[in-house]
Amino acid sequence: MYKIVFMRHGESTWNLDNRFTGWTDVDLTEKGSAEARQAGKLLRDAGFSFDLAYTSVLKRAIRTLWLALDEMDRMWIPIKHSWRLNERHYGALQGLNKAETAAKFGDEQVLVWRRSYDVPPLPLESTDTRTSYNDPRYVDLKREEIPLTECLKDTVARVIPYWNDEIAPAIRSGKSIVISAHGNSLRALIKYLDKMSDDDIVKLNIPNGQPLVYELDADLQPIRHYYLGDAAAIEAAQQAVASQGKAK
Amino acid sequence: MYKIVFMRHGESTWNLDNRFTGWTDVDLTEKGSAEARQAGKLLRDAGFSFDLAYTSVLKRAIRTLWLALDEMDRMWIPIKHSWRLNERHYGALQGLNKAETAAKFGDEQVLVWRRSYDVPPLPLESTDTRTSYNDPRYVDLKREEIPLTECLKDTVARVIPYWNDEIAPAIRSGKSIVISAHGNSLRALIKYLDKMSDDDIVKLNIPNGQPLVYELDADLQPIRHYYLGDAAAIEAAQQAVASQGKAK
Repeated sequence: MYKIVFMRHGESTWNLDNRFTGWTDVDLTEKGSAEARQAGKLLRDAGFSFDLAYTSVLKRAIRTLWLALDEMDRMWIPIKHSWRLNERHYGALQGLNKAETAAKFGDEQVLVWRRSYDVPPLPLESTDTRTSYNDPRYVDLKREEIPLTECLKDTVARVIPYWNDEIAPAIRSGKSIVISAHGNSLRALIKYLDKMSDDDIVKLNIPNGQPLVYELDADLQPIRHYYLGDAAAIEAAQQAVASQGKAK
Repeated sequence: MYKIVFMRHGESTWNLDNRFTGWTDVDLTEKGSAEARQAGKLLRDAGFSFDLAYTSVLKRAIRTLWLALDEMDRMWIPIKHSWRLNERHYGALQGLNKAETAAKFGDEQVLVWRRSYDVPPLPLESTDTRTSYNDPRYVDLKREEIPLTECLKDTVARVIPYWNDEIAPAIRSGKSIVISAHGNSLRALIKYLDKMSDDDIVKLNIPNGQPLVYELDADLQPIRHYYLGDAAAIEAAQQAVASQGKAK
């Protein structure tokens, strides 16, 4: 049996501002940093000692990982970064306050954009300064691999090859692994592992900064999963995610 | 022409206590963290943008790197860890206050242990709790690769293969590289690159937390080298290193 741990990054400055973030490289808030440290303590106290970590190229996920590994005294393990673990790209919504967007387009349209499986938000214009074309971390990607918007289906399509090509072989080799990523890149992995329907996955809310343990059988099929830590805190964190994007 | 940057970690808690550290995994002081951030700012302002970083498996070097990369907005670059970049192992002196050791053995003996090229300090007993045999970060090493003491010659012998096998090919491939390491693992690299004599290398004092730039020709032979930052601060930091280990 294998165990793998998923962590969604701690609260970011744009979570706090209720803005669509996507590929924008915002940092953690102080609360988010504290959540990351707490995740590390929970993991340490539960006896986890990772050999290998995966994360995105976005600092909110990287910092969450660094802070958790610091608490676990595992700063020295290899960390692999991939854009494939990035948050879903939010297209033309990136940078907009969610409540403002909701007030403009209505709760329903925003919920469609946030939560439908295959309807992407309006794309960024290719000339928009918010595109990632000139960002050095994507310099090795083909231009057509750099999204201008994504629906969750698109995110799944670029996350799962990374699971199959990189992460799954490492799990099978016996390594103890943590993945520090984002609400939608983790949804992509969970949908794939748990064979969840398109409708069900969009309703799944993954709380910030709570370690989620998946136990997998020899074929990497899930046996069970559970969050570490206090059930009430996790419930509250899930509710906080669910209520994002509603007009205030 | 290639450029490579060496950084010795910022001040550690045992630098402050004037203790022999070696492979003991002590952390940075607040001053050491500030030095690391300042190094990152200097590098950023000088236009460096690394593609790849190397460091040891010791947290004072890793944290120095993390803090510098954070300031440079390069948290997402690959970081490779190797025990071969660790500080020189200080044998039975590890954990002892340098002034106490000097008072006991005399300045001269301590200086021999610290600064002779090929005289190692007394080794740890293999049963000493200070050995690294049970440390998970060395689990893939053969037992005979885990030192009980080292002279600088021993450190050179395990650092240079890593330069030749890993770092030099990466430089030749065109990557922009930073190495965050330790006083003696950096001495090993500098001795090799600059073809310094055994006598000269032991007199070279590398200050904490000051980026040291080496410009290399197409054959990776040094053209020139220089520290970034304020000359007076670098001089003071070198003097501070030189005076460590004297009885107080």
